[in-house]
Amino acid sequence: MTGGYLKGRIRREDILTAAVAVYGEAGYHGSSLREVAKRAGITHAGLLYYFPTKEALLAAVLERRDAEDAEREHLGAPPGLEVLRNLIALAEYNVAHPGIVDLYSRLAAEAVAPDHPAHDYFVRHYRLVRTSASESFRVLAGRGELRAGIDPRVAATTFVALMDGLQVQWLTTPDEVDLVATLRRYLDSVLA
Amino acid sequence: MTGGYLKGRIRREDILTAAVAVYGEAGYHGSSLREVAKRAGITHAGLLYYFPTKEALLAAVLERRDAEDAEREHLGAPPGLEVLRNLIALAEYNVAHPGIVDLYSRLAAEAVAPDHPAHDYFVRHYRLVRTSASESFRVLAGRGELRAGIDPRVAATTFVALMDGLQVQWLTTPDEVDLVATLRRYLDSVLA
Repeated sequence: MTGGYLKGRIRREDILTAAVAVYGEAGYHGSSLREVAKRAGITHAGLLYYFPTKEALLAAVLERRDAEDAEREHLGAPPGLEVLRNLIALAEYNVAHPGIVDLYSRLAAEAVAPDHPAHDYFVRHYRLVRTSASESFRVLAGRGELRAGIDPRVAATTFVALMDGLQVQWLTTPDEVDLVATLRRYLDSVLA
Repeated sequence: MTGGYLKGRIRREDILTAAVAVYGEAGYHGSSLREVAKRAGITHAGLLYYFPTKEALLAAVLERRDAEDAEREHLGAPPGLEVLRNLIALAEYNVAHPGIVDLYSRLAAEAVAPDHPAHDYFVRHYRLVRTSASESFRVLAGRGELRAGIDPRVAATTFVALMDGLQVQWLTTPDEVDLVATLRRYLDSVLA
């Protein structure tokens, strides 16, 4: 790794961190590249060198978050119960970081529109998480560890929807919803 | 009912219908009372007579929607399996009206902030739906119709979260998510 390359990577990371902070305060639509540059302590032209558009910056923020989540929670473990438990551990991490959950929930709801800059990201994201959960439920089914009548694909869609829906419900009435316990109860309820 | 009162009610309904159309196109934040008045064919001052603020109009739109849903789908039926099935029928109605689902999902995600004009509405809304579903699951439990180990309150939170999460997932990838079938499967999976 050359010094210049390393410096570029650090700068890129600083910009992404600044973007998360600005989105958290002003929302994605209410934010500007100029504001993110200011927060990151670089010039607007300097930021444009790394991220030529607002959309490119948003995509990089979301993808960095997924990569960090996958590494921290070992989401790439072999399909099976561990992956599903690690997704619950991710939810537990998110509960301790409500700002991230808030940003993600809003973006997911806005990005259902095909012309939204994060639409393609969410299409890919949902496919990836559903496929991963589905493979894990299938492995459980193959070992006779899934309750009779539970379809692995339906359980995967349910599990992902439950994570998303619980986040909004919990953010709205935090004292009335135990997000992590509810997810655990769902997982337990489909195991044989 | 006097003629003047009736005329006022009709005018009020026209404004609410216009508001739903404008929110659907521009989003709540991107809309203005002036635009809604124009769509409803009345003056700005005329609209202010019925709804003095943007927030008051939003609250009335959401409450009218709940009242319409409750009446059409008989959500006020005595607690039990019928209420839960009627909530699934409501989801089926929503699938045929994606504009409503889109508006609702976005607002729910934005309104987690305590200072959002629809925050109090969503706090009340979630409490009401959770309580209603919870009572219905409890009636099933009392009749031995709920699977052993299923807690009525947890099942209610799960059911509501599932409706919300499935809506966003379905709007993002409509061909890959069967919203109504997934809800039905969940309900079947907790019945004895």
